[in-house]
Amino acid sequence: MKRLRLLLVVPLFLLAAFRLSAVEQWDVFEIALPGPSEGNPFVEVELSATFTNGVREVRVGGFYDGDGIYRVRFMPDTVGEWRYETLSNRWSLTSKKGSFTVTPAGPKNHGPVRVVNTYHFAYADGTPFKQVGTSCYTWTHRTDAFEEQTLRTLAASPFNKLRMCVFPQTHGIKTMPPPRFPFAGEGTKPDYSRFNPAFFQHLDKRVGQLRELGIECDLILFHPYDDEHIWGLDNMDPATEDRYLRYIVARLGAYRNIWWSMANEYDFVRTKTDADWDRYFQVVQAADPFNHLRSIHNGKIIYDHNKPWVTHVSMQNGGAVVEPGRAQLYRDVYRKPIVYDEVEYEGNHKSRWAQLTGREMVHRFWVGTVAGTYVGHSEYLAEEGDIGETVWIGQGGVLKGESPARLAFFRQFLEDSPANGIEPIDKWWQPNIGGRAGEYYLIYFGHDKPAEWTFALYRDGITDGTQFEVEIIDTWDMTITPVDGRFIAKRKDSYTFLDEANRVVKLPGKEGIALRIRRVGGATGEISDKPPGN
Amino acid sequence: MKRLRLLLVVPLFLLAAFRLSAVEQWDVFEIALPGPSEGNPFVEVELSATFTNGVREVRVGGFYDGDGIYRVRFMPDTVGEWRYETLSNRWSLTSKKGSFTVTPAGPKNHGPVRVVNTYHFAYADGTPFKQVGTSCYTWTHRTDAFEEQTLRTLAASPFNKLRMCVFPQTHGIKTMPPPRFPFAGEGTKPDYSRFNPAFFQHLDKRVGQLRELGIECDLILFHPYDDEHIWGLDNMDPATEDRYLRYIVARLGAYRNIWWSMANEYDFVRTKTDADWDRYFQVVQAADPFNHLRSIHNGKIIYDHNKPWVTHVSMQNGGAVVEPGRAQLYRDVYRKPIVYDEVEYEGNHKSRWAQLTGREMVHRFWVGTVAGTYVGHSEYLAEEGDIGETVWIGQGGVLKGESPARLAFFRQFLEDSPANGIEPIDKWWQPNIGGRAGEYYLIYFGHDKPAEWTFALYRDGITDGTQFEVEIIDTWDMTITPVDGRFIAKRKDSYTFLDEANRVVKLPGKEGIALRIRRVGGATGEISDKPPGN
Repeated sequence: MKRLRLLLVVPLFLLAAFRLSAVEQWDVFEIALPGPSEGNPFVEVELSATFTNGVREVRVGGFYDGDGIYRVRFMPDTVGEWRYETLSNRWSLTSKKGSFTVTPAGPKNHGPVRVVNTYHFAYADGTPFKQVGTSCYTWTHRTDAFEEQTLRTLAASPFNKLRMCVFPQTHGIKTMPPPRFPFAGEGTKPDYSRFNPAFFQHLDKRVGQLRELGIECDLILFHPYDDEHIWGLDNMDPATEDRYLRYIVARLGAYRNIWWSMANEYDFVRTKTDADWDRYFQVVQAADPFNHLRSIHNGKIIYDHNKPWVTHVSMQNGGAVVEPGRAQLYRDVYRKPIVYDEVEYEGNHKSRWAQLTGREMVHRFWVGTVAGTYVGHSEYLAEEGDIGETVWIGQGGVLKGESPARLAFFRQFLEDSPANGIEPIDKWWQPNIGGRAGEYYLIYFGHDKPAEWTFALYRDGITDGTQFEVEIIDTWDMTITPVDGRFIAKRKDSYTFLDEANRVVKLPGKEGIALRIRRVGGATGEISDKPPGN
Repeated sequence: MKRLRLLLVVPLFLLAAFRLSAVEQWDVFEIALPGPSEGNPFVEVELSATFTNGVREVRVGGFYDGDGIYRVRFMPDTVGEWRYETLSNRWSLTSKKGSFTVTPAGPKNHGPVRVVNTYHFAYADGTPFKQVGTSCYTWTHRTDAFEEQTLRTLAASPFNKLRMCVFPQTHGIKTMPPPRFPFAGEGTKPDYSRFNPAFFQHLDKRVGQLRELGIECDLILFHPYDDEHIWGLDNMDPATEDRYLRYIVARLGAYRNIWWSMANEYDFVRTKTDADWDRYFQVVQAADPFNHLRSIHNGKIIYDHNKPWVTHVSMQNGGAVVEPGRAQLYRDVYRKPIVYDEVEYEGNHKSRWAQLTGREMVHRFWVGTVAGTYVGHSEYLAEEGDIGETVWIGQGGVLKGESPARLAFFRQFLEDSPANGIEPIDKWWQPNIGGRAGEYYLIYFGHDKPAEWTFALYRDGITDGTQFEVEIIDTWDMTITPVDGRFIAKRKDSYTFLDEANRVVKLPGKEGIALRIRRVGGATGEISDKPPGN
């Protein structure tokens, strides 16, 4: 990004003329143009640019970045030569043309994340994206030193997605006031007709740093945590809201790691209705030519995720991953990826939303995984005397819990799972088994402590003679122990295959044990489309 | 009905003139008119009538009933004087006028069932309707003697709702061929442009008999059980489908006990898409001025029940009521009543969809109930040598299982529960507790066998000093045992109230135990709208 800006911004600024340059596929190509700074450019000046590679045209909204500078940011999805031309209601900004070369993506650049196989995610280049998320809601509203600490922690963590809010929250502002406010003017009397470019430049930088770390940024556009409504961020008028949404999409839509989350706990924003949330989705969708993922996260009331602008489900419901059998129910309902972004947190909070042990936090990841869904982490671990103003969930900083190490093991395990995603194998009947019929099985025993397991698999994808290897996974002690020899499938009845020698797997008799079972030989069998139960 | 027909049909037929008569509120007022029988009256003749009580107009579609007779059926929802006038594209049927008096409903007539309190049902007169359903899919396609046996069984059963198909199924047609076919012509080469009035007259009669028994008829309009497509009932063209839907709505819409179920296992009708099902809903909704309940029942794939024409959820998913914590998840998603119409069946079928013990069938009712949802029963209990052609689920006849007696106990219990419905008390956190905060609690222990229970209730609706009585329910042995004395609430922490003397309830240490806890004194407390977990 920085190098790019040197290449492009300066010459365009000085010459406002054609300039051939290069950018990687799915990186940010930026046009910067000098323009009017009188009046209120945020409201009065319109700017966009149309990009074309000769085959396709993409129109992208621009934005005013303060100090008389306007920008248009573009994320090219195709290599080759591209041209652009700007359009504005100001002479100094309109009909500016240029061209540039899009080069192939580098090894760490897989493009934006998309939905694949109905319930799963992959980067644009086809690389699977196996979501292992965490949340630091307002980490970008801290001191530079604190924020850099958070980035170092993330770099060493297992997490590949971060939920974070654009807006500050009021909690803790006395001891750690947000250094910048998104709108102009004083924090408690903002001028909602003007953005504060410094605020957004800072946000751009942090989102860009997450991108360099390979972390998806699930950016929360609204939240209810303006607790005493001292700012009014939870009660702007519709025109201001829409302008804000278009502004942030124009600024950040070209960052390939962006996901749009309309809100955290949307239903606790008491001033808004479902129709407002529908509108936000529509404004974002219309403004974003790059079609980033879009979701909305609930408090007590669940939004209708079947609406067409929702790309995946961002669910708060810890109860759904307490034990197998619950998490998968939402899959059937929505036919979209289910991300349990909030399943309670590892923590020592006085309220029960953050009282999970590390073990229980890890347990919930495995429960969600066998159901063909994805889970998110966070932690609230306050030290004595700390009033919760430097905990990971809110401010970032460092991770103190017991779960992250196990989630690193979990993530490695997940990366090794089938590329096209884990699916329930026998939904509604055997909810603790996920995988790919005939090829890969993950059986999770959760809080049970079985001493043995008789090899037995549901019929789909198996035939007499299909061969499997079995490994015992200790999800807490982070070990993978192969079981000797192969298991050879033999039909027992219309539902089940056993091992032909009726082999039994000895288990350690403790909690948190899983089995990984992979086909290593023999033919696969047919997959039935019979009614459930047949 | 019969008496009514004598009063109305004959005179109208003979005189085609004004006639003053009377009908009960929510009973059927029928106009019968002679008309053309040449050509194809089902396709060519249009007939409707507009009814008015001076305040409101209701337009109702009519239908051809064969033998030159046309009928319009009307279910008045308001007492007083009503008038009507017909409209037709045939002179002999148009502009016929009349008036009649609607008298108050009799003691057994509560009107049609409606959705109330988002998740529950009540009759139009406000009487709660606590659904305890069963299914006999094709009981109306049997001999008269067999069908009358089914009616006697239903009369003595606990069930207040019956799921049944309009169309026959192919299963068993060799030994027990359907005596009538809905369309004209031979069964395997039907003339889909003509209905068979005798078929529908028979259906009218059976639906009317259910109404007299106080049983709601959840009428299934399409199904996939034309197994080898010998009739083509699962693959009619859209115009025929729509004509069929309007015909059946015209015939049966005036029966107050009708619910419209678009299909059983809709997704196993392989010839139709979601758009077709949307259209069926819309055709039925447009044709039905009485606005009966509308639903659609799934196989493996769940329809989007958030669509506006769906009044409640008719769910097949046995897994959802295996244990508490699952069933309620659909409530949040749909914000409509959830009826688990198919949770597997008590039975001895070789396939697992009908292998429940009576105990497990009953268990699933209690699991669904504490979640604030409703459950349906059926059974497949074939005797030796029987190939499943006279089992309750398919043909009707007699009930042989162990569950119906316990469901009679259950239903009585349910009738005594709060009129406005059982709700989860602390959703996502304590899924085995339903009721009304501060007033009524139902705790179900399911397969657990606790020896005691420490009195402890979630904070909502309770304050220090609220007094409760506790009863122990044995759901299988059908006993209700009061626990001596009162329990006096005393706050333990921010979530929980205990008894002030820390009283513990001794339990029998067996499966299938529930507690009923009712407030009997003291003040109620506030109900929080805090975020979950707070």
